Formats: sequence, C-alpha cells, structure tokens
Amino acid sequence: MRATVINAPRDIRVEEVPDAAIKESGDAVVRVVLACICGSDLWAYRGESPRQPGQRIGHEFLGVVEETGSEVAGLKAGDLVVAPFVWSDGTCEHCVEGLTTSCPAGGFWGSVGSDGGQGEAVRVPFAEATLVKLPAEAASDERLLTALLSLSDVLGTGHHAAVGAGVKPGSRVAVVGDGAVGLCGVLAARRLGAERIIALGRHTVRTDIARKFGATDIVAERGDAAVEAVRELTGGKGAHAVIEAVGTEQSMRTAVGITRDGGAIGYVGVPHGSGTGLDLGIMFNRNIALRGGVAPVRTYIPELLPDVLDGTIDPSPVFDLTVGLEGVPGGYAAMDDRTALKTLVKL
Amino acid sequence: MRATVINAPRDIRVEEVPDAAIKESGDAVVRVVLACICGSDLWAYRGESPRQPGQRIGHEFLGVVEETGSEVAGLKAGDLVVAPFVWSDGTCEHCVEGLTTSCPAGGFWGSVGSDGGQGEAVRVPFAEATLVKLPAEAASDERLLTALLSLSDVLGTGHHAAVGAGVKPGSRVAVVGDGAVGLCGVLAARRLGAERIIALGRHTVRTDIARKFGATDIVAERGDAAVEAVRELTGGKGAHAVIEAVGTEQSMRTAVGITRDGGAIGYVGVPHGSGTGLDLGIMFNRNIALRGGVAPVRTYIPELLPDVLDGTIDPSPVFDLTVGLEGVPGGYAAMDDRTALKTLVKL
Repeated sequence: MRATVINAPRDIRVEEVPDAAIKESGDAVVRVVLACICGSDLWAYRGESPRQPGQRIGHEFLGVVEETGSEVAGLKAGDLVVAPFVWSDGTCEHCVEGLTTSCPAGGFWGSVGSDGGQGEAVRVPFAEATLVKLPAEAASDERLLTALLSLSDVLGTGHHAAVGAGVKPGSRVAVVGDGAVGLCGVLAARRLGAERIIALGRHTVRTDIARKFGATDIVAERGDAAVEAVRELTGGKGAHAVIEAVGTEQSMRTAVGITRDGGAIGYVGVPHGSGTGLDLGIMFNRNIALRGGVAPVRTYIPELLPDVLDGTIDPSPVFDLTVGLEGVPGGYAAMDDRTALKTLVKL
Repeated sequence: MRATVINAPRDIRVEEVPDAAIKESGDAVVRVVLACICGSDLWAYRGESPRQPGQRIGHEFLGVVEETGSEVAGLKAGDLVVAPFVWSDGTCEHCVEGLTTSCPAGGFWGSVGSDGGQGEAVRVPFAEATLVKLPAEAASDERLLTALLSLSDVLGTGHHAAVGAGVKPGSRVAVVGDGAVGLCGVLAARRLGAERIIALGRHTVRTDIARKFGATDIVAERGDAAVEAVRELTGGKGAHAVIEAVGTEQSMRTAVGITRDGGAIGYVGVPHGSGTGLDLGIMFNRNIALRGGVAPVRTYIPELLPDVLDGTIDPSPVFDLTVGLEGVPGGYAAMDDRTALKTLVKL
C-alpha cells in the first residue's frame, strides 16, 4: 500500500510500504477515506520533533473497516469509523476514567512500528475500544464527513482546552492561537455557553472563521499589546477562561496576562521551547489555574458526535486545502508557509 | 501601643507605635488576643522578601473588637473575632465570587501604612466584610481559641490547597511540605474524605502531627527518592491530588513527579526562587493540572468554623511554641532555626 513517510526534516514522501494487516485478535484494518495534516505534524516536518528516517506520519483519519481480528465483535467490515489520535485499550484504570491518552497499552499513530493516518490503510489495535462507529449515510455527505474527521483530533482538542479553561454558560473566553485547534476552541467555547469569545489572531482568513465559529471580538495585537487589548475588552479584568493553543513561551505568557483573577488557562498547545512562559508569582497572586494537556479525544467523541451530526457545530471550515494522498508533501509545504490552515487528504 | 516591627533582615523588634485608631467609617479596632508567626513571615525575616525599615509584620490574629466606625452595624465592642490574612470590601466582583484576595480595595496586614497582627491592636478596614464573629464562650477555652486562630491563615490555606488539588472522597493525596500549612493540608484532605494521605517529611515532631491529622503514610525521602517512594505507595501511579506547601523549585518538581496522570497539584507555597520547577512537557503528556495561589481564607471561614468549634478538626497542634508579645523576636529565631514549627503569640 502507499503511505506517507518522513525521512528527514522537510523530506516527506508517499511511498510503498507493507500493507496494513491484522496482528492481534483485537485489531482492525481500516481503509482510510479522509485524513489530514496537523499543526503538530509540522514540528516533525521542521525537524523540531525528532523522527526516525522512514517513520510513518499522520494521526487523524476516518475510514471504512476492511478486516477485523477474531475477537472484535462490535465492528465489521464496511463500518464507517473515526479514529482518535491515540489508540487505547478501553479497560485500564485511566481509560475507565476517561484519560485514554494515559493508557499504558495505548500509542500514537505514526509512532515507530505503527501505521500512520496519512496512508491508504491503518492497523488499529484495540479496535473496539479505539474506533467510534459513524452512521453509514455520512459517507455520502462530503461536508459532514469532513466535519466528522475533526473528531479525530482538533475538535476534541479544542473541547479539551475549553473544558480545562472551565468554560461555562456566561463565561468570558479568550483564545490564544488561530490555528485549527484554536478555532475549534472557539467553537467548543460557544457550544459550552460562553457569552463572549475573544479570539487573538491577525490573519483575516483565520479570524473570519473564528467569527463564524462564535468569536465576538478579534484582537490582532500580540504580546503586551494583546494583553492590554483583552483587558480593555473585559473591563480591565481579563477572561475567565483562556484557551492556549500554541505551545510557545510567548503564547503562554500572553495567556497568563489575559486571564482574570481566579480564572483558568486550558492549554493544549504542545509545549516546545526551553521556557514555560509561566510566571508563578503572578499566577499565585491571582489564583490562575493551568489545566490541560494531550486531549483524550476518544472520551469526548460520544459527547461531540451528535452535535456534529445534526449540524449544531460544523468544524469543517478549518480545512482549507484538499489534496489526494500523492499531494500530501505539498500539503505540508502549504501549511509550513501558512498558505493553508489545515490540509485535508482525500483518498 | 506596642507592636512588632521589622527594621532589617533578622532585626525584628517590639516597639512603641501609634495606637491603632479608626480612620474610615467602616473600620474597627481589634485588640489582639492571639497572633502567630507564619512561615511566610520568615521570608521577610531572612531578607528574601523586602520590607521597608520599620514596617509592621504579622498577618494572623484574633481578638476583641474595641471600637467601631460609624457605619459598622454588625459588630460591636466586646465581640470576639478572627481576621483572615487579608482585608477585603465584601462587595466587589471578586469578593462576591469568593476570591477575596483579589479585592482591589483589599490588603495585607503589615503592608506599608497598616497595622500588623503581631501587636497589641489592629485597625481593620471593611470590618464587617473582613472579620468573622466567634462565639464569646470560645474566649475561655485556650485550646479552642488556638485552633480558631488557624482560621486566620494556615487552616484555610491548607484547605485551599486541598480544594485546588481536587481532593474528594476516596482520593489518594500526597502532601509536599511539613510546615504548618502542609500539616493543615493533611487535615483538610482528611476532612474532604481522602482515603489515603501520604505526607512527605523527615522531622518526627512534624510527621507525628501529620499522622494525628490523618496521614496514612509518611515518606521521609526527598527529591527523586521521594517520587519513587510515593509511586511505590500508589501502585506506580502517583497521587490523584498533591498539595504543594513549600514554594521552591525542588518542591514543585517533586509535586509534578508524584501526581497521577489526570491529577492536580494544589499549590499554596509562596513561589520563590528563579525557576518554577514545572516541567510543562511532563504535565502536558500526563494532563497534570496546577491550581491554587494565595488562599481566600475569608471565604472558607464560614465552612471551616463549625468543624473547628465542634472539634471535628483541631489544627491547634501546629502551634508548638508560645510566647508573649515581647517574645516575638525569639519566636522568629526559633522558627528560623526550625526548633519551632509555628509560634503562638499570646497577648
């Protein structure tokens, strides 16, 4: 089969690889219908997150079950399914509590020895626990199918940030980061009843989506000026709930600066760089909480799925470039130079 | 009147100062009956937190109302009252939400221009909002009065840490810091229903109190060895809820290391030192939350007071040295060289 491999920084290719195949009795093989490229894939692309030469890549996909292991009872060939960005066994203490990303038997698509999402097919361990079945009729609705793909990562991750930030009805929310996750954070915050949503961003294409998703205000400033602008919009107080969807020292510093006393930062931007950007002295004096991390999106899918299916929320606008599998390298380049927000891969 | 002043690092004296007096119509003057020395006072004593020469000190006290301003209706001369360690107006947005420490009109006893708790009397701004009335009969019960003094800071601060750490019935809790606040954290965790409470500490006097307060396990190791010991006691997983009551880089690093995936650190140790001790990469991967800060103890007093009054909890053992007002300098020295855990000042 053909799949995307990363050989070195900026050397992403679509190559022939061994076919995805059942190895364990709980496995399924899923033929990929839609995949996409994540902002976090760019860290590998840019060489900032090391990868072994020839490692697969891509952790977001939905598709059709092609084959199941002998112990897979709840899924059958032909089922339309979406995969969260980590697999998990569904039975460990962490899975039972909903923190599927801490499952000791779990793992990330594209890790060494596993298939990646940006390929023709994927072997899925613990298929029954990992995959979530979608209504078959969604397969014929391209817009809906694209929206459902966001359940694989960005929508659940934005929701995790909103939950971590403590968004509730009436909250004033600010969102740091205008990438697909930040935009999904806007959508998730609106869904949770936020009264006011301030999106920080300076690219009109992105802030237009933010407005469509429910942002009530846009702050184009950065750094100290952004902090000042958000404070001005919130009566000098800051936002109750701040979504941090970048992961740099600067973005975290901004997040701390715009959080209201007693508020919380929900952070889902993968931390990179040497410093944390956290001023504990300020956070201590103002009782600012920090809560988040890698999102257990598997746990959120059952909650979010109905709202995507009935159109209450539609995250599909975050995909602004569509390529075929052979176009994946170009999709990375487009996201790297920010001409694309998020690349959809149609197989 | 006589009150404690700090002239320079390690130069603490009891001197004649102007009498505490009503300045605003909402003030009260409280004659101090019991005060105490806080671990955080030692930062001023050691010169690590700058003070102006001659500044007052002490932020924990209870006493008897001596005089009230013209607009104070709910308190009268002779009332026994306890003061939280900050005053607050009770009417601002933050006070209404319970974050009294963020009241813009609030302040700390002993800040420039205000009386400190370690003196004969204190002028209390916003007296009705700030002070909490205690039953008059408590005045004749020395043990109870000492326990009630802890409502001024350490008990409420320990409770804030336990709440921040998300302690609930059945929680496995670990407490970093064997000072009075850490010990009160043990007490607060037990009160909130923790099933297992692991106290980190190596001083028998302190760990004995921890056991009395509800600790089920003591870990005497420090640093990596402490992390390993706590993990061993928790099936390799760590504690759901970790109370951080020290405020150093090392203690925070330990706290992160012993928190279970998906758990939270409730931090109340005043941060000092240059680094945070937070490894955001680890916290991100394991979804460890951080929540806490300066404790709004005023808000907690109504909840904690009944349990102190009826003896459900008795924090009085954290006071292990009693001095008169003139003995305050010696009380600092004893806490500084760790021969005393917490000094009670009887006026």
